[in-house]
Amino acid sequence: MAHIKLNNEQLPGIVGLLNYRPETARPLLDLAETLLRGPSTLTSGEREIIAASVSYWNQCHFCHTSHAAAAAAHLQSGINLIDDIKAGLPNTPVSDKLRVLLHIAHQVQRNGKNVTADDIAAAREEGATDAEIHDTVLIAAAFCMFNRYVDGLGTWAPEPNEAYLEMGERMAHVGYGKY
Amino acid sequence: MAHIKLNNEQLPGIVGLLNYRPETARPLLDLAETLLRGPSTLTSGEREIIAASVSYWNQCHFCHTSHAAAAAAHLQSGINLIDDIKAGLPNTPVSDKLRVLLHIAHQVQRNGKNVTADDIAAAREEGATDAEIHDTVLIAAAFCMFNRYVDGLGTWAPEPNEAYLEMGERMAHVGYGKY
Repeated sequence: MAHIKLNNEQLPGIVGLLNYRPETARPLLDLAETLLRGPSTLTSGEREIIAASVSYWNQCHFCHTSHAAAAAAHLQSGINLIDDIKAGLPNTPVSDKLRVLLHIAHQVQRNGKNVTADDIAAAREEGATDAEIHDTVLIAAAFCMFNRYVDGLGTWAPEPNEAYLEMGERMAHVGYGKY
Repeated sequence: MAHIKLNNEQLPGIVGLLNYRPETARPLLDLAETLLRGPSTLTSGEREIIAASVSYWNQCHFCHTSHAAAAAAHLQSGINLIDDIKAGLPNTPVSDKLRVLLHIAHQVQRNGKNVTADDIAAAREEGATDAEIHDTVLIAAAFCMFNRYVDGLGTWAPEPNEAYLEMGERMAHVGYGKY
């Protein structure tokens, strides 16, 4: 049961929280919409993989599985992507640029100060632009917030990957502005 | 020097980042304004102390010092509050409720899952409401984002506490909507 009264079984994970406090839900959803579905030279699939990876590193089951399902919906890759993200994407063809950006995201997840000049140089070598580096850092940072919000209030979430497929389709194709 | 081109010496800490990407600046500032200055039964001074404490635990000098200066401006407590927050507020009269909420914020800073039912029960014993617990968790989570954003992009920030006093006054009394 969540730490505060949320009607969380009907509204799992962050959904009950967004419903509980609409004043903070608005900027949180606007941020997610801009970062994950707004104009960018990174595809939405790539950005959802970054979001899902950070959530997995923070052990947030709801955020990892829902955003991995959104990535699968964008990439039409099937449900196996959800577990492949946990393993570091051994079975998913992704660009070398995304792999170095995922390394930067992992550094940010631990602490912002962990990002080194060498990490940035490696990203530039793979063609990453300032805007892509900026957005990678902010996506990673934002999911360090969303993950703590969801878990810090003890919200409930369904266990099996299959329970997230419809949610992932909605996140990918309807977006974050329509809650 | 910051990891991306920001004109950061003129626009220290997060300011250069907000200026660099206005599309994400808007929801980030709206979130800060609502959480730190919007209607709440926690005072803005108390909420800025939570924000500054989390930032100190994350070792983010810019966010800690600027939000501690904002707390000092709200509480008219003088510059010593900035260092007193680092030490756990031994010389600042704060309520027992704020002390247990700061403990919850510290748990969230490490990982959302660290918040226990006992932590929540201790907060309720000091009179904390659902809304106060919610906002404490979200403020702590949000500063885990802001801190990683500011440090993950390697932004520059002035060192001495004195350099933040005017900024703190502006954050407290003008707010976060006017950048």
